[in-house]
Amino acid sequence: MNFASDNNSGIAPVVLAAIQRASQGFAPAYGGDAATLRIRDRIAEIFEHEVAVFLVPTGTAANALALAHLSPPWGAVLCHVESHVITDECGAPEFFGGGLKLIGLAGVAGKIAVATLAEALARPMWGGPHHVTPSVLSLTQATEAGTVYSADDIRALADVAHASGLAVHVDGARFANALARLDMSPAAATWKAGVDALSFGLTKTGALAAEAVVFFDPAKAAGMEERRKRGGHLVSKHRFLAAQFDAMLTDDLWLTLARHANGKADRLARSLAAAGLAPVWPVEANEVFVSLPAAADRRLKAAGATYYGWDSGSLPAGMSVGSDAVLVRLVTSFATTDDEIAQFVEAAAAR
Amino acid sequence: MNFASDNNSGIAPVVLAAIQRASQGFAPAYGGDAATLRIRDRIAEIFEHEVAVFLVPTGTAANALALAHLSPPWGAVLCHVESHVITDECGAPEFFGGGLKLIGLAGVAGKIAVATLAEALARPMWGGPHHVTPSVLSLTQATEAGTVYSADDIRALADVAHASGLAVHVDGARFANALARLDMSPAAATWKAGVDALSFGLTKTGALAAEAVVFFDPAKAAGMEERRKRGGHLVSKHRFLAAQFDAMLTDDLWLTLARHANGKADRLARSLAAAGLAPVWPVEANEVFVSLPAAADRRLKAAGATYYGWDSGSLPAGMSVGSDAVLVRLVTSFATTDDEIAQFVEAAAAR
Amino acid sequence: MNFASDNNSGIAPVVLAAIQRASQGFAPAYGGDAATLRIRDRIAEIFEHEVAVFLVPTGTAANALALAHLSPPWGAVLCHVESHVITDECGAPEFFGGGLKLIGLAGVAGKIAVATLAEALARPMWGGPHHVTPSVLSLTQATEAGTVYSADDIRALADVAHASGLAVHVDGARFANALARLDMSPAAATWKAGVDALSFGLTKTGALAAEAVVFFDPAKAAGMEERRKRGGHLVSKHRFLAAQFDAMLTDDLWLTLARHANGKADRLARSLAAAGLAPVWPVEANEVFVSLPAAADRRLKAAGATYYGWDSGSLPAGMSVGSDAVLVRLVTSFATTDDEIAQFVEAAAAR
Amino acid sequence: MNFASDNNSGIAPVVLAAIQRASQGFAPAYGGDAATLRIRDRIAEIFEHEVAVFLVPTGTAANALALAHLSPPWGAVLCHVESHVITDECGAPEFFGGGLKLIGLAGVAGKIAVATLAEALARPMWGGPHHVTPSVLSLTQATEAGTVYSADDIRALADVAHASGLAVHVDGARFANALARLDMSPAAATWKAGVDALSFGLTKTGALAAEAVVFFDPAKAAGMEERRKRGGHLVSKHRFLAAQFDAMLTDDLWLTLARHANGKADRLARSLAAAGLAPVWPVEANEVFVSLPAAADRRLKAAGATYYGWDSGSLPAGMSVGSDAVLVRLVTSFATTDDEIAQFVEAAAAR
Repeated sequence: MNFASDNNSGIAPVVLAAIQRASQGFAPAYGGDAATLRIRDRIAEIFEHEVAVFLVPTGTAANALALAHLSPPWGAVLCHVESHVITDECGAPEFFGGGLKLIGLAGVAGKIAVATLAEALARPMWGGPHHVTPSVLSLTQATEAGTVYSADDIRALADVAHASGLAVHVDGARFANALARLDMSPAAATWKAGVDALSFGLTKTGALAAEAVVFFDPAKAAGMEERRKRGGHLVSKHRFLAAQFDAMLTDDLWLTLARHANGKADRLARSLAAAGLAPVWPVEANEVFVSLPAAADRRLKAAGATYYGWDSGSLPAGMSVGSDAVLVRLVTSFATTDDEIAQFVEAAAAR
Repeated sequence: MNFASDNNSGIAPVVLAAIQRASQGFAPAYGGDAATLRIRDRIAEIFEHEVAVFLVPTGTAANALALAHLSPPWGAVLCHVESHVITDECGAPEFFGGGLKLIGLAGVAGKIAVATLAEALARPMWGGPHHVTPSVLSLTQATEAGTVYSADDIRALADVAHASGLAVHVDGARFANALARLDMSPAAATWKAGVDALSFGLTKTGALAAEAVVFFDPAKAAGMEERRKRGGHLVSKHRFLAAQFDAMLTDDLWLTLARHANGKADRLARSLAAAGLAPVWPVEANEVFVSLPAAADRRLKAAGATYYGWDSGSLPAGMSVGSDAVLVRLVTSFATTDDEIAQFVEAAAAR
Repeated sequence: MNFASDNNSGIAPVVLAAIQRASQGFAPAYGGDAATLRIRDRIAEIFEHEVAVFLVPTGTAANALALAHLSPPWGAVLCHVESHVITDECGAPEFFGGGLKLIGLAGVAGKIAVATLAEALARPMWGGPHHVTPSVLSLTQATEAGTVYSADDIRALADVAHASGLAVHVDGARFANALARLDMSPAAATWKAGVDALSFGLTKTGALAAEAVVFFDPAKAAGMEERRKRGGHLVSKHRFLAAQFDAMLTDDLWLTLARHANGKADRLARSLAAAGLAPVWPVEANEVFVSLPAAADRRLKAAGATYYGWDSGSLPAGMSVGSDAVLVRLVTSFATTDDEIAQFVEAAAAR
Repeated sequence: MNFASDNNSGIAPVVLAAIQRASQGFAPAYGGDAATLRIRDRIAEIFEHEVAVFLVPTGTAANALALAHLSPPWGAVLCHVESHVITDECGAPEFFGGGLKLIGLAGVAGKIAVATLAEALARPMWGGPHHVTPSVLSLTQATEAGTVYSADDIRALADVAHASGLAVHVDGARFANALARLDMSPAAATWKAGVDALSFGLTKTGALAAEAVVFFDPAKAAGMEERRKRGGHLVSKHRFLAAQFDAMLTDDLWLTLARHANGKADRLARSLAAAGLAPVWPVEANEVFVSLPAAADRRLKAAGATYYGWDSGSLPAGMSVGSDAVLVRLVTSFATTDDEIAQFVEAAAAR
């Protein structure tokens, strides 16, 4: 009963087989191999747009390199106050960005509202030389609360951001889950909605380690090769990054895996709700957040379930976690089974 | 006939099988898994010393993180003028080190002589506040010239370095090749000879991506967890880094693979020498450097051989590459076969 | 009628005369002169404690160098959300600190309450490797709201900070004003209350450009010489920084000048209050903040008064600035005269 | 008898008087004052070109800010191997430049030869992603050896640099001395010869602390305001920087002072030569380098003379410093008198 994180899962079998196949023979290192060259074209095809693509081994690397590339050191990256980039990367964006600032914006269910963004940009606190200047809006899709921005949400936010000269970045560590839920094209969910750069993560989806920074305007990517290299993020046996992407993007495996994870989250949420434990936020990707009575929490731990407690100021207005309860995050993945869900719900609901 | 680099090889089968096995079930992410915890103990056992170990996905990451951790931003890292850290990492040590300086020292066959180090440290160019202060001696083992420092070499260099307050770092991207050649214990080649920290690379040896920073004084590693994370180098599905190390360090696989590569380099060197193409430097690891007549170079290229030209100021005194010749580097790996060597030598020697 | 800032004033005559005297003859550069050496002893004497002292030309330099020295790059500096270091230095602490984070804490009248600090430190958002670790508490004395922490305030805050392993820094750009108001010894207001390092500013007090970083534990200052130099903040004709400090610290000139400024602020506040314009925060240093009716604002501008509008979320509970009014900051200095105050109040109060 | 450095001199009386005058009344801070605005126009007039100008308090700040602005973090700054930026600034350019590299080029008499630059740029060691890319040529004018590049020298070097995409920076800590010697217009010595940016120093010429970064293409200066501010180099009472520049640039005071210093260097050199102590390099600015017999060195020290020993690999071919001699640097300034020179030569020559 592992619901701790989708990165607690292993490698999807098709991806593992692709790594195995890619290991035959010799290939140029550092991205000079044929598979890497193909991947750029494949991503361009999938996104229906020319792209510059930089494969990297971690999501933190993708985010930090992207933000550092989109912002000058005296820029400010606006993001949700509970987003991964501001809370969970130990200052990676600040380090790669030469000391840029991340500014956290509040918002229910992990989402930034258009009015909140507009109000933040209107504050008299920006502009050189004394103040940093907003340079990037970074959205998380799916969000830390397991919710999803609609294309219209993104379009509206991007319009406000672009009007003030900000670039729009999406942290897509769970982009596949969001896209599977939105049921729209990658293009519609990104550049058509105003996204300038995407941290395109497939590790949580089921890869070993496969992340990419995708720029929809290749001209904006000048110098990124060097930035990646000096960040230590140019993997030498690069064909293995490419092989993972190739396997994932063939026959929509990434979306199939994400749909599986999303479906298991739905099932988990339904079952918990039926047991009186309704999720605190809509389940729109592969995460379920519930307020667990302390007794249920103890039973689950005793039964060997693993998951993390969660701390959030992003609950809906009027909702709070009771004193004898704990807010927990439950994450599903390509590897989650109905059995595990049934066991979990049984332990949670038992009395 | 791929002699371009050992990172052009794939994954050694035993390592690949270990990745496959590790993919079963769920495991905590970010190094909280059992395999990762075991690896530290295993490395301590192999090196016969307590250690702090940080697994990372690239050699550049290992070097840059290690040097940044051993040196203040106002420190100078002394290294061979043709070493990887100063020429081939696009400034990664400077970036991670907050703008530290790398100072290149000349030396025949890729090696720094003790007298050269002593003379450099004695120059009146060091010391705050106006000048940077030497903080680290970084040695490459095996060197960029495919040569190997003996334990006595390292001991003598380390003594000079320590006497001036420098820490001693070894870039061990080809540490296995060096160790296999030296035929001594890992301990004898490192901390017993005065090494403080090691970039312990197994990717070139035959892993997918498996590098580590090893500190022989764990107290010196305080804060390194955070440094790795904010560098984007804490891999989420960390068990797969651990699995590669585990496979490599079981039954001395790493040394077996390195011995294979070294043996193939010896064979290639002998065959080339018999054809009148003696290596310019002693072949002490898995690299052979020869001055190739232009005609041979053309024949080899036409026959599909891949290798890199080399530019070096590190040739033995009096030796130079003729105007109608090119210095080339030939690298062998666990995957190199006698057939390839035979084909290569035939094409090189044909007339 | 210049109430824009105390840095709009010139140089106090005694300080100017000291610069003139110091210009006679030759003197070693970069702090090797006799006057610089004397200043450290003088500051130690005044603070009744051994100190390490680093003179620099700007307050931003003092703050950024101090915070970078007290915090690792993965540290968090906790400060008031409206403090100069977080809002007005364009990211200088982040730049010098290798990408550290500044965390803004709310608080009425520019002050951080002990409970607020304790609550912030208790949040489950800290600690490596994923999260930054609180490393420094930075207090502004006098605050951005023109208020002053008592020695007891600082003691209580420092106790909470130290208990969690944080160092305590004071941004003392207006330290003289605070001290003059507190009427206590420099020692009592700093190290005796738990302060570890002080940005000791005398520019606003009446110098040309004279700031210092003072460490009360000289051992903690190791490496600071180099940090200052490579920050470009080691002034070559250093005797002129020393001369300014010398003049200021002789016969308590700094406190005399600060008392003058404070007294003028009191007078201005009293006169404005008599005209129905009571300050929004207690006037405890040399700044007066009032909510100015739009008409008064227009009259003052027309009459040639200069001052800045102010934006603050730090007003007392229940207080707000009316829609037809503007919150303004009025700063006095050693150069403020009663005449200017009278003119200002007359223009403000006229109807 | 102070010949240690021109920064051991005080403030030229006219400059001091200007500071005094500037201290009257109030003025906007941070460069918003009228004097600062005038200075940009004045510098544009003197250089006969539109300019962007940034006043800063130290020469290291000017150099580091300029180089960081002209180069990406993955760039290489080519400079003379004994230049101030690479040897004497404790890594300031690397720090401000996000970890860029300085590459030292050898050259007799402190000067980079055109062939040396061309050869360096032709080496197969440049270019991403693995290698840094040359981004700036930094020339020192006058050089560390007290010599001066002619306009033709600079033109030829700049042509080579520009052809490879490098910007040309001049460290002009002693620009006035060079210009006074060259007897040409500021324009002819800078942008007309291909210079893109100048560190324009007047502190050594006789100011308290007055340095500027001058860009001849203002568009290239975008973001420099913020870079200066977050470097802590935006001086608050900015009018005093402006006042120093204003005094210096009025009636060519800067050149008059520099001519005085140069003349004294000439006189010192002639007198020493007459006593058998000919300078090792041509005296082209305000510095004299001589090989001093140990006995003369002892006599001079005993007589109270101050000067620095010098270590250089830049001596003319075939020249060396004898074992019983020491190479020393003697610097003159606006404050040097004939009396001091006479005393010095007498002590040096006595037997």
